[in-house]
Amino acid sequence: MDAQSEKILAHIIRNTRIAALGTLRDEAPHITMIQFVTVQDFSTFYIFANRLDPHIMDLQKNKLMSLLIAETDDGRADPRTLARVSIRGSAEPMQNGEPGFTLIKKMYIERFPASEALFKNADFGLWRINPKGGRFIAGLEKAYNISLETLQKVSER
Amino acid sequence: MDAQSEKILAHIIRNTRIAALGTLRDEAPHITMIQFVTVQDFSTFYIFANRLDPHIMDLQKNKLMSLLIAETDDGRADPRTLARVSIRGSAEPMQNGEPGFTLIKKMYIERFPASEALFKNADFGLWRINPKGGRFIAGLEKAYNISLETLQKVSER
Repeated sequence: MDAQSEKILAHIIRNTRIAALGTLRDEAPHITMIQFVTVQDFSTFYIFANRLDPHIMDLQKNKLMSLLIAETDDGRADPRTLARVSIRGSAEPMQNGEPGFTLIKKMYIERFPASEALFKNADFGLWRINPKGGRFIAGLEKAYNISLETLQKVSER
Repeated sequence: MDAQSEKILAHIIRNTRIAALGTLRDEAPHITMIQFVTVQDFSTFYIFANRLDPHIMDLQKNKLMSLLIAETDDGRADPRTLARVSIRGSAEPMQNGEPGFTLIKKMYIERFPASEALFKNADFGLWRINPKGGRFIAGLEKAYNISLETLQKVSER
């Protein structure tokens, strides 16, 4: 991947607040809009939800998921030039009190202040997404298969 | 659904140009960003792609899919108030020359002028998405299960 594409990938991962989460439901794909945060080296992503949310019930049955992080549509002439990355991986609930929980909670509340009160609600929790690989489209005719190592490398950009 | 929510649903379907497409890949959900158009009564949606695109190869194996149409993030304080609709359904290739093909092609090119040349490329084609149902989140605490009939009804808003 060229340096400019690496910068674009790092930029959309850092600066996009919402993503599409794909889960399996009744043996079909289902997509939900979610808020997310990631850590500095892009090695894990985190979502926060009610355990009764349908997409969380999906993940409890099958942890395989996909995340699409796409550049916000700015009305440009050709939307195919919008950068986006599809990440495939698996999701697991984070335990309140496990190492890193306080840091992720802090990052999440900083980005989404309205969520603070929900951390006091026992039905809500953080889920960790572990990326296995994915596909990054930097724009027209610029597509790359990516791995966890790619994410970690571009996080230095 | 209240009248205001119906208007919001009609608005995001009409005024959003890109969506997240969920397909099945290796028994896991996969998400791709796509451009789409819909007809006046919201009864069918259309995408246009190369038959060698991975998401099209997914649909050739399993037609079950999901579409997420989400309001563009405008940087508001709480992104959970962004309206979005998840539509589940199935996709099938549209045959060049079948009834309606010319109209859909015209609508697609009007919305995405850069695609015009690709209609001359035999590897590219239109796919029809037939909605079976879905879930509409109009904002905080406002969620609705929707059917094909709901889509048709709100298209009159």
